[in-house]
Amino acid sequence: MKYVYSFNEGNKDMRNTLGGKGANLCEMTNLGLPVPYGFIVSTDACIDYYNNNGSISDEILDEIYEKLEELEKTTGKIFGDSKNPLLLSVRSGARSSMPGMMDTVLNLGMNDEVCDFFSNKRFSYDSYRRFIQMYADVVMGFPKESFEGLFDKIKQEKKVKYDTDLTEEDLKEVITRYKEEYQRLSKTSFPTDPKEQLISAIKAVFKSWNNERAITYRRLNDIPSSWGTAVNVQEMVFGNKNNNSATGVAFTRNPATGEKVLYGEYLVNAQGEDVVAGIRTPKSIINLKQEFPDCYNEFTKIADTLEKHYHDMQDMEFTIEDNKLYILQTRNGKRTGTAAVKIAMDLLKENMIDEKEAILMVDAKTLDQLLHKTFNKELLKNAEKIAEGLPASPGSAYGKICFDAKHVKYLANNNEKNLILVRDETSPEDIEGINIANGILTLRGGTTSHAAVVARGMGTCCVCGCSSLKIDYENKTLETDSGIILHEDDYISLDGTTGYVYLGKIEVEDPVIKDDFKELLDLTDKYKSMEVRANAETLKDSKTALSFGALGIGLCRTEHMFFENERIFNFRKMILSKTKEEREDALNKILPYQIEDFYNLFKVMNELSVNIRLLDPPLHEFLPKKEEEKIELAKALNISYEDLNNRINSLKEFNPMMGHRGIRLGVTYPEIVVMQTKAIIEAAIKAEKENFVVEPEIMIPLVCNKKELQYVKDIIKETADKIIKENKANVSYKIGTMIEIPRAAIISKDIASDVEFYSFGTNDLTQMTYGFSRDDAEKFLPSYYQKQIFEFDPFVRVDEEGVGTLIKNAIKDAKEVNKDIKIGVCGEHAGDPKSIEFFAKVGVDYVSCSPYRVPIARLAVAQATIKTETFG
Amino acid sequence: MKYVYSFNEGNKDMRNTLGGKGANLCEMTNLGLPVPYGFIVSTDACIDYYNNNGSISDEILDEIYEKLEELEKTTGKIFGDSKNPLLLSVRSGARSSMPGMMDTVLNLGMNDEVCDFFSNKRFSYDSYRRFIQMYADVVMGFPKESFEGLFDKIKQEKKVKYDTDLTEEDLKEVITRYKEEYQRLSKTSFPTDPKEQLISAIKAVFKSWNNERAITYRRLNDIPSSWGTAVNVQEMVFGNKNNNSATGVAFTRNPATGEKVLYGEYLVNAQGEDVVAGIRTPKSIINLKQEFPDCYNEFTKIADTLEKHYHDMQDMEFTIEDNKLYILQTRNGKRTGTAAVKIAMDLLKENMIDEKEAILMVDAKTLDQLLHKTFNKELLKNAEKIAEGLPASPGSAYGKICFDAKHVKYLANNNEKNLILVRDETSPEDIEGINIANGILTLRGGTTSHAAVVARGMGTCCVCGCSSLKIDYENKTLETDSGIILHEDDYISLDGTTGYVYLGKIEVEDPVIKDDFKELLDLTDKYKSMEVRANAETLKDSKTALSFGALGIGLCRTEHMFFENERIFNFRKMILSKTKEEREDALNKILPYQIEDFYNLFKVMNELSVNIRLLDPPLHEFLPKKEEEKIELAKALNISYEDLNNRINSLKEFNPMMGHRGIRLGVTYPEIVVMQTKAIIEAAIKAEKENFVVEPEIMIPLVCNKKELQYVKDIIKETADKIIKENKANVSYKIGTMIEIPRAAIISKDIASDVEFYSFGTNDLTQMTYGFSRDDAEKFLPSYYQKQIFEFDPFVRVDEEGVGTLIKNAIKDAKEVNKDIKIGVCGEHAGDPKSIEFFAKVGVDYVSCSPYRVPIARLAVAQATIKTETFG
Repeated sequence: MKYVYSFNEGNKDMRNTLGGKGANLCEMTNLGLPVPYGFIVSTDACIDYYNNNGSISDEILDEIYEKLEELEKTTGKIFGDSKNPLLLSVRSGARSSMPGMMDTVLNLGMNDEVCDFFSNKRFSYDSYRRFIQMYADVVMGFPKESFEGLFDKIKQEKKVKYDTDLTEEDLKEVITRYKEEYQRLSKTSFPTDPKEQLISAIKAVFKSWNNERAITYRRLNDIPSSWGTAVNVQEMVFGNKNNNSATGVAFTRNPATGEKVLYGEYLVNAQGEDVVAGIRTPKSIINLKQEFPDCYNEFTKIADTLEKHYHDMQDMEFTIEDNKLYILQTRNGKRTGTAAVKIAMDLLKENMIDEKEAILMVDAKTLDQLLHKTFNKELLKNAEKIAEGLPASPGSAYGKICFDAKHVKYLANNNEKNLILVRDETSPEDIEGINIANGILTLRGGTTSHAAVVARGMGTCCVCGCSSLKIDYENKTLETDSGIILHEDDYISLDGTTGYVYLGKIEVEDPVIKDDFKELLDLTDKYKSMEVRANAETLKDSKTALSFGALGIGLCRTEHMFFENERIFNFRKMILSKTKEEREDALNKILPYQIEDFYNLFKVMNELSVNIRLLDPPLHEFLPKKEEEKIELAKALNISYEDLNNRINSLKEFNPMMGHRGIRLGVTYPEIVVMQTKAIIEAAIKAEKENFVVEPEIMIPLVCNKKELQYVKDIIKETADKIIKENKANVSYKIGTMIEIPRAAIISKDIASDVEFYSFGTNDLTQMTYGFSRDDAEKFLPSYYQKQIFEFDPFVRVDEEGVGTLIKNAIKDAKEVNKDIKIGVCGEHAGDPKSIEFFAKVGVDYVSCSPYRVPIARLAVAQATIKTETFG
Repeated sequence: MKYVYSFNEGNKDMRNTLGGKGANLCEMTNLGLPVPYGFIVSTDACIDYYNNNGSISDEILDEIYEKLEELEKTTGKIFGDSKNPLLLSVRSGARSSMPGMMDTVLNLGMNDEVCDFFSNKRFSYDSYRRFIQMYADVVMGFPKESFEGLFDKIKQEKKVKYDTDLTEEDLKEVITRYKEEYQRLSKTSFPTDPKEQLISAIKAVFKSWNNERAITYRRLNDIPSSWGTAVNVQEMVFGNKNNNSATGVAFTRNPATGEKVLYGEYLVNAQGEDVVAGIRTPKSIINLKQEFPDCYNEFTKIADTLEKHYHDMQDMEFTIEDNKLYILQTRNGKRTGTAAVKIAMDLLKENMIDEKEAILMVDAKTLDQLLHKTFNKELLKNAEKIAEGLPASPGSAYGKICFDAKHVKYLANNNEKNLILVRDETSPEDIEGINIANGILTLRGGTTSHAAVVARGMGTCCVCGCSSLKIDYENKTLETDSGIILHEDDYISLDGTTGYVYLGKIEVEDPVIKDDFKELLDLTDKYKSMEVRANAETLKDSKTALSFGALGIGLCRTEHMFFENERIFNFRKMILSKTKEEREDALNKILPYQIEDFYNLFKVMNELSVNIRLLDPPLHEFLPKKEEEKIELAKALNISYEDLNNRINSLKEFNPMMGHRGIRLGVTYPEIVVMQTKAIIEAAIKAEKENFVVEPEIMIPLVCNKKELQYVKDIIKETADKIIKENKANVSYKIGTMIEIPRAAIISKDIASDVEFYSFGTNDLTQMTYGFSRDDAEKFLPSYYQKQIFEFDPFVRVDEEGVGTLIKNAIKDAKEVNKDIKIGVCGEHAGDPKSIEFFAKVGVDYVSCSPYRVPIARLAVAQATIKTETFG
C-alpha cells in the first residue's frame, strides 16, 4: 500500500485518499498552475496512525523521507540546510472541507541557523516567531493565550499597534522570549531538528482530526470519523517577505449573493493566518489590480480556468512573494443558500453544467437561509442604529446579548429563543453557541473570518468586523462609540445583509422568494420520486406550505387545535370527566370548533390531500399546571380544588411517552374517536357542497396491535358511513395508521391489509427503537458525541441501521400484502436531506415536514432521484 | 362442511371440533357406557355464528333439525309432544374446559302441555320452574336475582327451608308467578315452541363464549378467543324424579391431595345445578354404596374404566333416574398443584403412564402453590374480602399495615413478625422493608412493577395495582371503596395467588415439599434442553435457588446491593458528586462491600455460573425523597439543603425508563464500571485462592449501539486484565450484553461478535417494543382485555409475534456470526411456562428466573423438550 504521494502523482478524483485540498493541489499541478511543490501523507496513513494507537509506522516514515528527498531535488533546496534551506507548510485536508477545524503549521524547518540564512531579517524573525507560536499551539497543545498574550505584551511594551510595526530587534526579542516560554511549559528546549519538527507536525495534524471542535463539526455536517485526514506538506512561499509580497483568499463569485464577480481580500506583507484571524482588516481584492497589476491579471485568468475546470465556483488561497503569484489551494467555495441557488442557476444558464448538476450543486440544507427573516420595514424606520459592520451572512435577527457560547446554551436551555452571540472574534470552540444563536456579531475579522464562514454555512445571520464597539468581558458590557452601554441579556438587532446593528428588539418578517429559487424548485418537479407535504394545522401554516409547493398536508395534529381559550376549557372538562356522559357532553361542545377547523383546512387545500391525525398526546399535557389556573378550572367545573387535584394526579404517568396516549385513548374513550370522525366528515360534506374537492385521510396514532387498529377503525367507519348516508353525501375518505412503535413495524404484514396508508412517525419510532426519550437523552448524548459513539443525532438524521431497518422491512412486508398502500413519513426526519435520500431508496411515497422545510425537502427529493438514477 | 354431530359420530380426539365435553360424550358412547344420547353443534358453528354477526345460518339450522329427528328416533320420544315428550339439556363445551364460565339450560322442551304429561307432578313442576328460571337467566339475560328472589320469597311465604319441602301446589304457583315475571321483564309471554327454545338456547351458549367472566378466564388460562365453544344437546335424565333418583359429581382420585380414592358427592332427588349451588349440603360419595348399591358398583367400575382409558384422573358427572345410572360427563379432573404432582408420580408408578406423560401431566404454573404459604381453608370461608388487585407474587400472608419501609423495620426490631407493607408503589428505597415484610400491597403498578418483581424474587406474597384502595400517608390510613378505614398497625391479609385482600388476620399454613415433588423435579433433568438459573443477589436467595436445583445465577442486580445503611450513603455521595475525583472517592468506599458481596456469592455458587449485571437503574431512584432524609444527607455531604435539592432535581427525568441508565451510566461515568469490574475480579481472585471454582460473567445492560458496547467492554477488559496480571491470578471471565432495547436486537449481527453471551431482558424489550411502560399500562390495559384486543398480558407471557420475532431473529443473526455465543433470558418471562416453550424453540440456552420459580421453569423446560421431540 502506498501512503505518501507527490503532487504529480494525484488528481482531483483522489480526494478519498489525498483529501480535498491535496487532490486539488495535484490537479492544479497537472494543469500547470503556479503551485509550490510538495507531497501528501494520505488519509490511509491517518487511519493507520489511529489503528496503531497514535504512532506512524516505519514504512510510512520511510515513504515520507523519500518524498522529502524528491521535494528537495525538485526545489533545489535542502531541508534544515543553513545555506539553502527548504521551509515547509504542513496542513490538514480531509475528504470533505472542514474550514478552521483542524490544524496548520507554517514555516516548518526553521531554526536558528536557518533563520540566519535569510538576509531580510525582519522577515526571517517574523517567520521564525510565527513558527514557534504555531508549533507550540498545534504540536504541543500549549494554551494559545500563553504565546499570544506574550506577543501582545511585547507589542504593548514597544507601544506599537500592528505586528508590522515591530522592529527586527523587537522580533528577535520575541523569539528569545518565546523560546523561554516554550522551555518553561515543556521542560525541554524548542526542537531544532527539522525532521523531528516535521514528523511531530504530521502527527499533530492527525491528532487534530479528533479534537473536540472537529468532532462537533463532523456531527453537524454528517462526516464520518472513519475518513481521517490527509496531511499536505508543501514548500513555503512567503507573503510576509516584504511589501512586494501579500497573501489572500478569493472566490470566483460572491459567496454571499452568488453574483458573478471576483470576490475576496488580501493583506500585504502577511501570512495566510493573518487574513483569517482578522487582526489587521484586509483590503478588497479590487485593490490588487492597482497594487499588483500583473499578479491580478494572472490571478483572474487562473480563477476563470479553475471555475471552468471544476464546473463550480472556486474558493482560492494565493500568496504573492516578491511579485510572483502562487496558488496554494482551490476548492468549491462554501456559499450562502442565496448564492448557492443563484450560482447553480447561473452556471446552468451559462451551459457550464446541466439540470441534474444544478440540482445536485445546491446543498439542500442551505435553502433554509433563503427562507430567513427580514426586519419589519416600518419598525426599521424608527430603529436606532448603533454600529455598522461587515455584512457577513444574510438574514435579520434580534435577541439577547450573550458574551459567550456557554451563556447562549444556558439561555436556550431556559427556553429563550432569541439570542445574539457577541464576541471580539469567534473561534471553532464557539461552534455550538453559533449553532444555537440566531445572530452572530463580531468586532474583529472580515467576511472570510471564522465567524462569517461558519454563520453562512448555518444560515445564521452575521455581522463581522464591527470595530466601533467595545466588549468588557469582565463586567459583561458592550459599549458603542457614542457611549451607550449594553449589558448581557439586553436586546440588540442585527441585519446580516447590511451589516447594521440596532438597539433593542426589531420584529422580523418572513422572507420573499426570488425567481432563481422558484426556477430551481420548478426544476425539482422533473425529478420528483416522492411527494412533499407539510405538517400543518393552522391556515397560516397551510398557506405557507402551499406557497412553497407542498402537495397537501401530511400531518394535521388535531391536539394543537385545542389550545384556544374556549376550547381548552371544554377539552379539560372532557379529560376530567368521570363518566362517559360527562365526556360526551364536553366533546359535543368541542365538535363545532373542530368542524370549522377542518372545513377551513379543506377549503385552503382544495384538491390536495389532508391527513388528519386523531388525538395523540397524553391527556395530562392539557391540564393546568399553575395554582390560579387550577382554582379557576375547579370553580368552572363545579368541583373542589382537592377533587380537581386528585383527578389531575390520577392522570400523572411515570413515563408519559410510553403511557396512555394515541390510539390507547381511542380504545378507552371511543367517544373521542366518534367526535373527531364526525367533525372530519361533516366538514368534508360542508366543503364538498361548496364544490371543493376533499378526500380526508384519517390517521390513527401509536398503533401496536392489529385488533386495536381494527377496533378504532371500525368506530371511524361506522361513524363516518352513518353521517355520509344520513346526508346523502358522496364523500370518500381513507383510513391509515402511523407506524411509530417498533411492534407496529414488526407486524406490518399483519396490519397492512387493514389500512390504506402508513405514515412513519420517525420521532417516536427512534425513541422506542433506541430506548431513550429525546427529553432525557440530553443528559448523556454529549458524552456519546465526545466519545464518538454517536456520529450524528438520530433525532435529526434517521438511523438507517436500526430504525431504518424497521422502516425498510415494514414497507416491504406491507407492499407484499397490500400493493396499493401509500407510505408516508411525518417525523422530523422528513425534512432532513440525508434521511430523505434513505426514504426514497426504501419506497416511501411522500414525506411531510414543517412548511419552511418544504423547499428543502423538494430539492432533497430531486437530488435523491438523480443520485438513484445515476448511481443506482 | 359438517356442523352438527351425533354422539356416535365423534371420539375423544375431536375436541377441537366438538369441544372437550362433546368429544368425551362421543367416546363414552363408543365405549358402551350408559350415556343419554344426543348431538353436538360444533365449534365451527360457533365461529360461523360470530362471523355472521350473531346469527345461525340456515345450513346449520337444517343440520340441527336433522339430528334432532335422529335423536327422536333413537330415544323413541318426540320433542314437544304431549304424549311422549323428549326433554333436552343444552350445555356449552369448549376445546379446553372452562368450568362455570359458560351457560347451561336443562329441561328444555318443557311447556304447559308437556308438563301435564308427567304423572309425578311434583317432579314435572319442579323441572318446569327450573327450566323457566334457567331460560330467563341464560337465554334472556335477565338478572338472576329476579327469579331467585321470587323463589326465595315464595319459600318464605310457605315457611319452608328447602326446595324439596315445597308442595305440588306451591310449585305450580311458582310457575305461574315465574311466567308473570317473565312477561313483565320481556314484554312477551314465555315461549312455548320447543324448537324456538332450542335455537335460542344454542345461541345463548354461543353468546356466553364472550361473556366477561369467560374472557377473563381465557386470558388467565391462555385460551384463544378464536376457538369458540361447541353446544351439547342431550336427552334429559332426571335426578329429581323421585327419591330413587340422584345426581352427583365424582373424581377418581382426591383432587386436593391426589390420594387414590373415589372422591365426590351427590344429592338425592335433585338436578345437577343443586350440587354445585350448595343450597342443600350434598352427601359424600361413600354413602352411595348403601343408598344405591348397584349403581355404586357400576359407577366404580366405570370410573376405573375411564381412568384407565384416559390415563388420567377423571372428573365425572352422573345422574341416577329411578335407580338407573347415567354418566353425563367425564373429563380429566382439575387438581391442586399438590394433587397434580402426586397423581402424575402415582400413575407413573402404576405404569398407567410413562415418564414423559407424567411430566406433561403437571401444569407447571400450579407448582407455585406447593412452594408458598396458604390460608387456613376453614378460616378463609368466613373472611371479609375488602379489595381485589393483581395477583403479583403467590402465597398468603397476614400482618400489620405499615405505610413505609421504616415502620416495617421499626416494628420488626420490636419483634413483630407479621407485617404488610402497603404503598402506592414501591421503589428500590423500600427494599429493606420488602425484605422484612411478609406481604406487599401496592395501589399502582402491574405484575411486573418494582414491587412485584422484587417480591417474586424473594418469594414474598404480593398484590399489586389495587386501585380501589386509597392511602392517606399523612393520617396513615387506608380506605376501601366501601368506606372502611384502616389505620397503621391494623391487620390485613393478602392472597398473592388470587389478588384478594381481606380484613383482619387469617392464619396461614406452611408448604410441605414432599418426596414426589422432588422425584418429579429429578425426572425433569432427563429432558433438560435449557439450563435453569436464578435471579439472585443475596446469599439467602442464592441458597433457595440452589435448593430448587438452579444451575447458577443468571442475573445478579448489583443495584440491589447498595441499599444497606452505610452503603447507600456512599452511593448517594457518588451520584451527587460534581467531579470525577469526588465520584471515585465515593466509589472507593463502596468497593470493599462489593468485593465482599461477590466473594460470598462465588463461594455459595461454587462451580456454577454467576452472571453479574453492571449498575442499571436511573440514578435518581437511589436518592432520598423524604424531607428529613434529605436534610440528613445534605449535612453529611457538607452541602446546603438547597444545593442538594438542585442536584437531585437536575437528575429528574421525563421518562426515566428511557433515560440515563444502564450502559449510559457507564459511558458518562466510566469510573463506575471500573469499580464494579474491580470488585468482581478481586472477589473472584479471592475465592479462587480458597479453591472455589469461579468464572464470573459480566453483563452490560441497555446496549443499543456497537461502539457503546465496545467502549464499556474495553474498560472492563482493561481493568480486569490489569488486576489479574498484578495478582498473577488465573481467573477467566466472560463479557456479555443484555438485549433489551429493540435496536440491540435489530443490530444483533453487528454486535454478536463482540460478546460471549446475550441475555434477553424481556421486560424492557416488551416495554420498548410495545411502546408502553408497565407502570402506566395499567391505565388502559383493562380496556384492552375487556375489548379482547389483548388476550394475555405481554408482561407475563412473551408476545411471540412482536417481541418474539425480535428475539428469534436476533438469535439467528447472532449465531451466524458467533456460533459459540450463549443465549439467555432473564426477564420475567423466564419463569413463565408458555414463554419457556417459545424460548426453547428459538434456541435459547438458559433461562433465569426468581428462585421460587426455578422448579416451575425446570418442569416447563422438560415439557418443552418433550413437546419438541414429540411434535417437532
